[in-house]
Amino acid sequence: MTDRTSNIVASLDIVEEKRLLDLSQEIGDSVFAIKINWPTILACGKQIISKLGKYSRIICDLKIADVPNTVNLIMKQIETEKPYAVITHLFTGEDSLKTLMDNEGGIRVIGVASMSNSGAKKYLNPNYASLIKDANSAGCYGIVGPGNDYKLLSEMSKIKGNMKIFCPGIGAQGGNYRGAMNSGGDYMIIGRSIYENPSPLKYILNLEKS
Amino acid sequence: MTDRTSNIVASLDIVEEKRLLDLSQEIGDSVFAIKINWPTILACGKQIISKLGKYSRIICDLKIADVPNTVNLIMKQIETEKPYAVITHLFTGEDSLKTLMDNEGGIRVIGVASMSNSGAKKYLNPNYASLIKDANSAGCYGIVGPGNDYKLLSEMSKIKGNMKIFCPGIGAQGGNYRGAMNSGGDYMIIGRSIYENPSPLKYILNLEKS
Repeated sequence: MTDRTSNIVASLDIVEEKRLLDLSQEIGDSVFAIKINWPTILACGKQIISKLGKYSRIICDLKIADVPNTVNLIMKQIETEKPYAVITHLFTGEDSLKTLMDNEGGIRVIGVASMSNSGAKKYLNPNYASLIKDANSAGCYGIVGPGNDYKLLSEMSKIKGNMKIFCPGIGAQGGNYRGAMNSGGDYMIIGRSIYENPSPLKYILNLEKS
Repeated sequence: MTDRTSNIVASLDIVEEKRLLDLSQEIGDSVFAIKINWPTILACGKQIISKLGKYSRIICDLKIADVPNTVNLIMKQIETEKPYAVITHLFTGEDSLKTLMDNEGGIRVIGVASMSNSGAKKYLNPNYASLIKDANSAGCYGIVGPGNDYKLLSEMSKIKGNMKIFCPGIGAQGGNYRGAMNSGGDYMIIGRSIYENPSPLKYILNLEKS
């Protein structure tokens, strides 16, 4: 891996292993990290995490949202694959988060302080300030903030402390790379605009110049 | 499978495939269903769902909590294994829930209207009435209610409509089988008290007589 300075996280929700590995080999060096979610792990098995780790930092977007005992059991299964970071929900409360931090096994923890879908405005996003406080107190590495809601993202960036903000919602969900950066986002999570693109590497390199 | 009348859901958070299959063969006929969660799927692969389906109804406790597109991709991966039901979070909002219901592929949907850990009292559980309303409107088969908080469970049972209440928190987390039933719970989710028991089948049969 080269010394990458990109702030793009490629969210590769691909379920065909060969296609995923080929694309990761092509772009892995040119992005900050590759993010995968449950669909890929269900299709390819958890070993896909360490296989992809050859090409880039891997963020496992598990959106963990369970009781402490289950959180611990999930982390025990994931730590063998040595991802760079995992994404967890925070709304399940401080006991679940504390158990996760106590069992992170060297894996960075990114907490969901808001989501980019419209439904999240009802229960989740109104609690963003308190969720950010929880994440900071627990020692999280980062938080998730919406790349398609600049007002909320800007408010989150003011209270994030030393944590990094990872922004989904760019591209297919309406957010803009430069707009989200200007609103305080640190890393831009981009999915379909990369993996449905006929020239994904070119798209990434052009985006950073945009 | 015999015609089971049990209301016990055995929550088998076991990651050794042979031990899980052996125990499921032993007790599968004597419980309403077997529930598995991500630790088991991570350890054994998603095919464990259909393998266990030979012995009992299988409830996949995925606690899905993501944006609509990812919800859809998760269900596409799960439906090939034909579980009896999946458990999803509801707090991610109505768009995610609608996408799940539109893609359930014949799998029953159980929504988390509250959780049994103490941390859930901060953000999740105060919204139980509204979450139950969302689940009912969307056509969910059931909801999750705490088997260790009889007051909350009783309140939930009054507004559940035709949905079934599945109760974790029995045993290791402090709830009592008969107490949760008397508070309006329909199905009792029991984990460690079964799979850490030297005589799990005897424990189950005795519990129903208790």
